[in-house]
Amino acid sequence: MTPRRRGRPAGGSAGDTRARLIAAAREQFAARGFAAASVRSIAAAAGVDPSLVNHHFGSKQGLLVATMDLPVDPIEKISAVVAAGPDGLGVRLVRTFLETWDPHRDTFSALIRTGVTSPDDAPAVEVARSILIRLLTDAVGDRLKASLIVAQILGLATARYIVRLDPVATATLDDVVGAYGRSIQAIVDG
Amino acid sequence: MTPRRRGRPAGGSAGDTRARLIAAAREQFAARGFAAASVRSIAAAAGVDPSLVNHHFGSKQGLLVATMDLPVDPIEKISAVVAAGPDGLGVRLVRTFLETWDPHRDTFSALIRTGVTSPDDAPAVEVARSILIRLLTDAVGDRLKASLIVAQILGLATARYIVRLDPVATATLDDVVGAYGRSIQAIVDG
Repeated sequence: MTPRRRGRPAGGSAGDTRARLIAAAREQFAARGFAAASVRSIAAAAGVDPSLVNHHFGSKQGLLVATMDLPVDPIEKISAVVAAGPDGLGVRLVRTFLETWDPHRDTFSALIRTGVTSPDDAPAVEVARSILIRLLTDAVGDRLKASLIVAQILGLATARYIVRLDPVATATLDDVVGAYGRSIQAIVDG
Repeated sequence: MTPRRRGRPAGGSAGDTRARLIAAAREQFAARGFAAASVRSIAAAAGVDPSLVNHHFGSKQGLLVATMDLPVDPIEKISAVVAAGPDGLGVRLVRTFLETWDPHRDTFSALIRTGVTSPDDAPAVEVARSILIRLLTDAVGDRLKASLIVAQILGLATARYIVRLDPVATATLDDVVGAYGRSIQAIVDG
C-alpha cells in the first residue's frame, strides 16, 4: 500500500529493487536505529542507486513504513483526514484511527509495545513523531497542540488494544468516536 | 504514605505486621497476579489475621499500592481531585497528575512499561482500572467516560514520561494543563 511511482528502475525489475531495499532497510534500522541508518548506506547494501529510495518509497520514512509490512499505509490515511481541515478533525481522526486499527489490533499492539519499551530503537515512534506531528501541525497550526493530540491517540490505542481497559476496549466504535473525538476537537479549537 | 489506621495489631508490632504483609503480598502478586492472590493467602503467608489487611491498608488495593513503594499515594490524590466535583475536573486532574509525577517520572515510566508489556501480571494496570475508574465513574456518572479519561491520562503519561514526545515532554506544566485539561473536560461535560 506504499506509494509506487512509475519510472525506470536500475538493477533488476522494480519489484526486485523494492524488495532488496526493504530487506536492507529492515536490517539497518534494526541494527542502527532509524535515524542512524542512512539512505545512502541502505541503498549501498541493496546494490542500487540512493535515488531509488525516493523513487519507490517517497522518503526514508516511506521506506520505514514499507519495512513494517503494515496492513494499511498510515501516511496516506492521516493525510486524507487532515486535508479536510480543522472542522470536525477530532471525530474524523478517531473514526479513521479505529476503523483502521480495530481489525488489526494485534499488529498495532506489537508496534506500540516496542515503541514504549524500547523508544530509542523503535522506528514506529519516530514515525508517530515525525509524520503524524508534522501533518497535524499543518492542520492545527501549533506543534504543542499537535503533539497533545498524538498523546491522546496513543492513550486511546493503549487503552483499547493493549491494556484492554474496559469499557474503552469493548465499547462500539461509534460510542468511542463521539466522546473521544469531542475531546480531541477541544484541543484543535482551543 | 498509605493510610494507617489506629488500632491494636496482632502478632508483633504494627510496623512488623505491615512489613510482613507487604513482603508476602509482593511475592504473591508477582507469582499469581493481583486478582488471583487472595487477602486470606497473603495474610496466611505473613502469619497474621486477614482482617489486618483492611486494618493497615484499607483494602487489597491499598496493600498493592503499599507494595509498589510509590513516592505518593495515588488513591489519596485522586480522591481529593474527584471530591471537588465535575466542574473544572479536567484541569485539576491534569495539574495534580503532572505535579505528582513530573518529579518522579522514572518511577512512573517503569510502572507503565510493565503495565503495557505485561498487562496480565501488572498490578499497576489493575490499580488504574479499578481505583481510578471507580473514582472517576462516581464523579462523572458514566463508566465509559471515566475509562476514556483514564485513556487520556495514560496517553499523556506515555508521551511525556516514556516516549518523550516533543513538545509534550518538554512543555511547561502550565502549557500542558490548559490544553489537555480542556480536552478531558470535554469528556466530563459531554
